[in-house]
Order: sequence, then C-alpha cells, then structure tokens
Amino acid sequence: MSLLLLEGASKLQAIRWVRPRLDILDQLLLPHASTYIGIRTSADGHRAIATMQTRGAPAIAIVAALSLAAELLGSYEKVSAMGAEAAAAALIEQRLDYLGTSRPTAVNLFDAITKLKAVVSRALASGHSVVDAYVDAAEAMLAADVADNQNIGRFGAEFIERHGGPLKVLTHCNTGALATAGHGTALGIIRSLHGSGELEHVFFTETRPYNQGARLTSYELLVEGIPATMVCDSAVSALLRSDPSIRAIVVGADRVARNGDTANKIGTYQLAIAARFHGRDFIVAAPTTSIDLEMESGEDIVIEERGMDEVLVTEGFAADSVVDG
Amino acid sequence: MSLLLLEGASKLQAIRWVRPRLDILDQLLLPHASTYIGIRTSADGHRAIATMQTRGAPAIAIVAALSLAAELLGSYEKVSAMGAEAAAAALIEQRLDYLGTSRPTAVNLFDAITKLKAVVSRALASGHSVVDAYVDAAEAMLAADVADNQNIGRFGAEFIERHGGPLKVLTHCNTGALATAGHGTALGIIRSLHGSGELEHVFFTETRPYNQGARLTSYELLVEGIPATMVCDSAVSALLRSDPSIRAIVVGADRVARNGDTANKIGTYQLAIAARFHGRDFIVAAPTTSIDLEMESGEDIVIEERGMDEVLVTEGFAADSVVDG
Repeated sequence: MSLLLLEGASKLQAIRWVRPRLDILDQLLLPHASTYIGIRTSADGHRAIATMQTRGAPAIAIVAALSLAAELLGSYEKVSAMGAEAAAAALIEQRLDYLGTSRPTAVNLFDAITKLKAVVSRALASGHSVVDAYVDAAEAMLAADVADNQNIGRFGAEFIERHGGPLKVLTHCNTGALATAGHGTALGIIRSLHGSGELEHVFFTETRPYNQGARLTSYELLVEGIPATMVCDSAVSALLRSDPSIRAIVVGADRVARNGDTANKIGTYQLAIAARFHGRDFIVAAPTTSIDLEMESGEDIVIEERGMDEVLVTEGFAADSVVDG
Repeated sequence: MSLLLLEGASKLQAIRWVRPRLDILDQLLLPHASTYIGIRTSADGHRAIATMQTRGAPAIAIVAALSLAAELLGSYEKVSAMGAEAAAAALIEQRLDYLGTSRPTAVNLFDAITKLKAVVSRALASGHSVVDAYVDAAEAMLAADVADNQNIGRFGAEFIERHGGPLKVLTHCNTGALATAGHGTALGIIRSLHGSGELEHVFFTETRPYNQGARLTSYELLVEGIPATMVCDSAVSALLRSDPSIRAIVVGADRVARNGDTANKIGTYQLAIAARFHGRDFIVAAPTTSIDLEMESGEDIVIEERGMDEVLVTEGFAADSVVDG
C-alpha cells in the first residue's frame, strides 16, 4: 500500500513539535494525501482548529497551546522588547482567549487555557519569564497527553487481556494519534494490545455521517499495520452475534459527567446497548481531563448538532483504499 | 419539489401492467430521474432483475411473471401456431426456469415459479389454453400482492394505533411500492397510518451500505407527501431515547423461518435490540409467501454477502434532495 510505503515503520505523528516549529498533518486531506502544514502563529492554530485540519478534543488543546508557543518563540525578541513581563502576560492571555473561540464545544481546550493562564500568572508573580514558563507548560501538555494515552492504552489492554488472547475488539469513530497528541485513547488500547501481541483483529465502524472511521481510523490502522476490517455502523450487532471472540467495544469520550454518563460520537449509545445485549465489555477510554465534575449527569451535556450536508453530501472512496486484514 | 410536480397527487406505481404492456420504473436511476422502461420479453425481465432495475423480493416475482406474460401475449399467434398446447407449456416452463436464474436468493420468485408451473400443468391437463391460464395467473399475482399489502398495512396500522395518535414510527431499508407490486409491506403500514390521519412523522434510516433508505424510501415518502426525516443508522437508539413518541419500528422481511426468526437487511437485528431496550413495538411486516416452513430457524438462513464496493464506493447526493418534514 502506498500509505505504508510513505510512512514506513514509523508511528503516525499528527502533531510534530520541534521547538520552535509546529507542523500538523492536514486531516482534511486524509486518507488521500499525507500533507503537513506549518503552524507558526496562534492565528494559524485558530484556523487549523476551526476548519478541522486538526480535530479530536485532546489534539485541539495541544495544537492551540503549541501554536501560541511557536508564535511567542518566533517573536521572542519583540516580546522581550515589550520590556515588561506584564505586557507579555497580557498578550498571552489575549491570544489564549482568541484561541478559545476556534471550536466552542471543546472542553479540553478550555481546560488547557485555564491551566496555561495560571502558569503565566504564577510566572509573573514570581518574577520568572512568562514566555519561558508558557512554552515549557505547553510542551509539558504535549508530553503529558502522550504519557496519559500510553497509560490508558496499558490499563485498557490489561483489562481486556484478562479474557486471554488472541483477542478481537471493535471501535467507533477516531480516537487515535490523529485525535490526540499521540498513541490515542480507545485506539491507544488497540495499539497497546497490538504491541503486546495479543490482538488478532480490529473491527472499526464507518462512523456515519462524517466517516471518521472510514477516513481516519482506516488510515491509522494501515499505517500501524494492525489487521483490521471496516464494518457499517448498522452491522455491529450481527457481527457480535456471529463472532463471540470479539471481546470488547472500545470508544473515546468527548465529555464524561460526574455520574459517569458519557457524551461521544453519535452511534456510541447504540453500540453500548449492543455490547450489553451480547455480554461484551464496553470500555470508554478517556483522560481525567475529559471528566467534567461540574456536570451532574449526561442530561446536562448539550449535544452538538451539525449541518445536514454531512449526511446528504458525500465523497467517493477509491476501492483500492480498502482496509481488510 | 420536482419529484412531487412530476408525480402529482397520484400514488407511486413502480410496476405498470396494462395488458399486454409491462413498464417498470428504473430504480437504478432513482432518486435523480423517474424513468419507465418497457419490459416486452422474459429476457427483458431477466435483465431488469439481474441489474436491479427492479428489486424487492415481491416485486422481483411479479416482474418475472409479467415479463413472460408480455412475451406470450406479444407472440400469441406464434405460440398458437405451435399447434400443440403441450409445446406452449414446455416453452413456458423453460422460460420460467430461465427467469429463476436472475436473482438466485429471491424466495418469492421461486414460490411464484412453482405456482405458475402448477397452473400451466393444470391447464394442460384440463384442455384449457395454457397461455390464457398463465397470463391470468400472473395478473392475479399482481392483484394479490397489492391486496396482501393493503391488508398488511391495515393490520399493522390498527396494531400501532392502539397507542392513540398522533404517532411517530421509524423504518429501515425500502419496503414500499418500489419493492412490491404496490403499497408496500412495512411502508404499507406507514401509508395506511398516513391515510387514516394518525401519522405525525416517519423517521427512516439511510440503510448503509447501499442506501436504500436515502435513495428509495426518501423518494417514496416525498411522492406520497408523508412528513419524514432521514437519520443515520447509528442514530436510531439516541433518537428513540430522546423521543418517546416514536411508538414502533416497522421493517420488512426477506425470509421468515418456521420459528419466527427473520432475515432482513443488515441493521434490522440491531434495530430490534434498540426497540426492545427502549420498550417500543418492533413489527416485521411480510406476506405469508415470505414464510419458509422448510427452515426450522434463522440459523438455517444463508445471509447474502455482497461486494465490498457497496461500502467503499459511494455516489454524492445533491443537498436539494433533502427529505425533512
């Protein structure tokens, strides 16, 4: 496959940060082309998030934070020349608020903005460089997200492995390296199962209407060389019934309420019912930053309703992009 | 809408039989164009079934039977000139066997072929015209299918109306006038509910992978002026949860086993689980000809597996063909 030749054996990296350069994989062009675009300023970051060149709640937060880090490092002398650390802190606050307008429903983004503002305030109060403190904190967020996902992957894999391998699992939407800083949440569990040699096969849904499974999860699994088959969203129950060796359905989360209710891509609830009916594990994989303690239950979570075109208009796929292990 | 202007207030008629002419609506062109094609011979009928210009188990059987009726009437003098009724009967048998090769999994087709052969045998044995007997029997099948569907519609509507109106229902795939000789099975129930003024709204699924809901059910509901909204297959459970006034899911059947197990379009089983979980009626609407008493249970029913292209390749829809009541 051309994708495998392009990427070789290296793991998929959708966010590339080599201080002071940030480059992201343009997800609007996937799976047809693997093109990285340079993000040099917070305006670049805002545009990439708003147009969904980058997506996935954790990835959005990281790209927003690092886009401002790139801007600050690129104009470091100018920021220093502003003379006062207070002015630099005010600039950072203003740019963070602006980044917060890129994708209003992304909870991780607001969590990151709040934390970064606190870092800047502390640096200012203690007489440290606010730019240095900001950039260090943004970099730490990138590292922490990857580390969190590796832990999620390990914990989830261990939980599923209690059934004894080789194992089959099913996943929905895209929750991998394309949606996070790396490794992924639900797809992180699948990467970890594959890494430990316990994974026989992954099934993933098309994920209508926007086809994140067909477009993105297919791409990630191809790049990683994980044996996989795509199924229609409607086919999952028949598949579970016909193949009892599918031990678990693993999904991500947009937001988790205090009582454990979870909001995620449309179709997740239907899959949870199917898993329960067939007695399979249903695992929601998410970092603690996705848990919103302000929300008492799922009833309080406002579900995003998107345009009709995502259902009514579609783009053809070439038959040679098939993923079937 | 242009569709409504085209069809006016008349009911959708996918199979038009005015002795000796058979014309069918070319379903491969729907919903973009409403084009009727003439079926003059059993070869025309075979081609229309094999290429899916006509589809739906009851419709296939009727088109096959009537295509041979058209051929026999068109060459009546030639058939009479064959001199012997026995030769005509042999010709009919041979053409029926040929029609049976058009779509090997259609149980209604084989049922029709068996019955038509018996009619011809009886006519031959009793000294009647085998051609007349054949044509009368094929016409009777058309009338019986419409009458059966009207009864199915009435019984189903009465069953759902016990909840008290106005009612909302959900359906899957296409089971209407496009799949039968007229009125439809599951969609017949919806037509009957609409006719009695009890129907508030219909939701119908896209029905991936081949989009029979998006392409065909949308078209029928538009032509009939029934208020309707299309939903992704994955969205049904969330919809049932958010709208308790959706009282029933109604679906058709490809085949029903002796114990009641039913084979139908992929996704039907998942919808049945969703209906049960949410405590809604789940109704399988089918004529008795769809019940296969030879099959002890659903385990014996071989599920048709179709080509990958139906999942991997798709055709764009124009946004102005939206169905939303």
